[in-house]
Amino acid sequence: MDIVVQKFGGSSVANLECMRKVMAKVKEPLEQGSRLVVVLSAMAGETDRLIALAEEWSQNPPPAEMDVLLTTGEQVSASLFAMLLQANHIRARSLLGFQIPIHTDPSFGTARILDIDQAALREHFKKYEVLVVAGFQGCDINHNLTTLGRGGSDTSAVALAAVLQAKVCEIYTDVDGVYTTDPNICSQARKLSRIAYDEMLEMASMGAKVLQIRSVEFAKKYNVPVHVRSTFNTEPGTLLVQEDMAMESVLVSGVAYDKNQARITLVDVFDEPGIAASVFEPMATAGIVVDMIVQNPSREGRTDITFTVSKGDLERSKRLIENIQSDLGARGVFTDTHVSKVSVIGVGMRNHSGVAAIAFKALQAEDINILIISTSEIKISCLIEDKYTELAVRTLHEAFGLEKEPESAEFSR
Amino acid sequence: MDIVVQKFGGSSVANLECMRKVMAKVKEPLEQGSRLVVVLSAMAGETDRLIALAEEWSQNPPPAEMDVLLTTGEQVSASLFAMLLQANHIRARSLLGFQIPIHTDPSFGTARILDIDQAALREHFKKYEVLVVAGFQGCDINHNLTTLGRGGSDTSAVALAAVLQAKVCEIYTDVDGVYTTDPNICSQARKLSRIAYDEMLEMASMGAKVLQIRSVEFAKKYNVPVHVRSTFNTEPGTLLVQEDMAMESVLVSGVAYDKNQARITLVDVFDEPGIAASVFEPMATAGIVVDMIVQNPSREGRTDITFTVSKGDLERSKRLIENIQSDLGARGVFTDTHVSKVSVIGVGMRNHSGVAAIAFKALQAEDINILIISTSEIKISCLIEDKYTELAVRTLHEAFGLEKEPESAEFSR
Repeated sequence: MDIVVQKFGGSSVANLECMRKVMAKVKEPLEQGSRLVVVLSAMAGETDRLIALAEEWSQNPPPAEMDVLLTTGEQVSASLFAMLLQANHIRARSLLGFQIPIHTDPSFGTARILDIDQAALREHFKKYEVLVVAGFQGCDINHNLTTLGRGGSDTSAVALAAVLQAKVCEIYTDVDGVYTTDPNICSQARKLSRIAYDEMLEMASMGAKVLQIRSVEFAKKYNVPVHVRSTFNTEPGTLLVQEDMAMESVLVSGVAYDKNQARITLVDVFDEPGIAASVFEPMATAGIVVDMIVQNPSREGRTDITFTVSKGDLERSKRLIENIQSDLGARGVFTDTHVSKVSVIGVGMRNHSGVAAIAFKALQAEDINILIISTSEIKISCLIEDKYTELAVRTLHEAFGLEKEPESAEFSR
Repeated sequence: MDIVVQKFGGSSVANLECMRKVMAKVKEPLEQGSRLVVVLSAMAGETDRLIALAEEWSQNPPPAEMDVLLTTGEQVSASLFAMLLQANHIRARSLLGFQIPIHTDPSFGTARILDIDQAALREHFKKYEVLVVAGFQGCDINHNLTTLGRGGSDTSAVALAAVLQAKVCEIYTDVDGVYTTDPNICSQARKLSRIAYDEMLEMASMGAKVLQIRSVEFAKKYNVPVHVRSTFNTEPGTLLVQEDMAMESVLVSGVAYDKNQARITLVDVFDEPGIAASVFEPMATAGIVVDMIVQNPSREGRTDITFTVSKGDLERSKRLIENIQSDLGARGVFTDTHVSKVSVIGVGMRNHSGVAAIAFKALQAEDINILIISTSEIKISCLIEDKYTELAVRTLHEAFGLEKEPESAEFSR
């Protein structure tokens, strides 16, 4: 028995008309004899409405009660959609997280899936063709309701596809796939027909809001074929897969950017062992994620340390650093919010040298100064002045010829 | 440990301001050292909103999915109220039907409670002072969500009070107690300080919408002291209790009426054994409740059969009867919707004769013709022309002196 998992976001289930379009998508694999798990988000706007209510009721809504409140959103869309399918003679029923059950840890608001009872799901398939699952939710071992964080329905869908060994996990959304870069910035942006899990992880962590990062991690871990596509047309979208030879022959797959960066520089701190630890330990304790770090000697026995945090963490970070400034011997602490990060991403970098050189040269040709560089196996990131963001994205996109389909037509991306 | 159960209806939790008033009610027993179970309905209007959605999505919404949808209403109010209590430093948490669990049979939409895990509830009281329970809902043994029917939160509250052997089950509502009759019809109506379970059952089945009938049955069965009172003032309301000597010394406790009656008459059916069964068996099979029945011989070998059903069942009933009309030898089937039922109710009737005579004489004095009479141990009901309903209610109320407190001041009702 083939199983297909489909996930539809809030804008795809916003009203009856939208849900009818969703039903049309559901019928396709059904008519080919597959059984379906359909994972739904809350109707567009509903989660925000509930959050606003909670904030009216409590200045600091307790996360456990928040999850009880928020899970109603998906409960409503799942039950309504099951009604619609039944009214159209499709054997369907809704399933809530606790009913399957989808067990999670007890981290309310950001719970992680521990296990899913796939035997129970297969049992339901004896009676139903379509299981309509409320996304975003699970329960802990004490029957408390939990939620998986914003975008958590993606993770619900991929996790269900993993345990059921689904043929494919289709993520329907309001964009029609994953692009080489943001089409709003670069008119040359091209839809990728395939992307490697690792590339998608880098894209997602750079703010490409197509998928929740956790869902991509899940897909990678369990090798789930994920198909990102549009609810509103029938074009094929982008397939997330394990990287293969064809992918590795391509230098770069995409260009991403992140404007939510802030830079902090400590000037002339003592250049001695342990100094970096004394800077970054208090940040880690406070739960602040430090992204790029660079350290370079200034004058004798002294060094400058520069790093970036998200704009939202800047004020807290600055206060932490000022507390220890004198211990570090720092002459000053400077901050800058007019920065952004552009990155080129591609699994091909693993086997090719010279990618960084192409990127730096292209930026230099446009007189874009690079403030910090950081690299990983499949990514090169440059911090630049934020006014150059769009120019840098277009420049890099062109430098790597991303507007053109790769030569290997068979494995075109 | 004293446990108090409080139940608040939709208008009592309609918004934040209302919920603050509810919190004040909760604080009273709390300050006296009691632990509380607070049962909430959905916020006013929410259940109707969800029903309207379902009817948009499906012409005939399946009851199982309807229950998944409707239970979100109480889930929202319970979580919000738990947030409010926590924000005010009261140790509280929400509990949904399936979490307790409250086990019911699988009759979606009209489920009956089978059992409640009271040990689990007591366990929660080790950590929390107030358990905020979503009313109206439970789950069957297969983890399907179920609902207890309109007004089901009353039954949730009384059932919880029963298993926890609560000191009292307070039902807060927008009226301030149970009256001798409808104050909108009879300005002399008087609030009862106490009423026997059996009397309340009769009142409730006559459309006095203060309490769901099932909740009164529960209260009677488990001898739960139920206090019906107003959310919006601090006056004592009406206490539902086992009948006692003081009650039995009073002839009549209240006058009820029901305008939702329709009369069907079969004229000149064969007067032979089994004829009544052949009329009422098909009705029972179709789930139609027949209320009053009278049979009286017309001409030789023939008899007229008259009975009442609710107005909503009239058309279906008529069709059923017309199907078998010729088998019965009936000369005609007549229907009449311009009828209503007035009843006098009182446990005192068990020990006193002459109550019926007083009632009939009073109606006769106003020239109100009685179409059908039916009696039970504690009730006398008369079907009359509906235009006389209000007059009949006032007449009977006066005939039994209900405007006056009974003489025994100590056990005043």
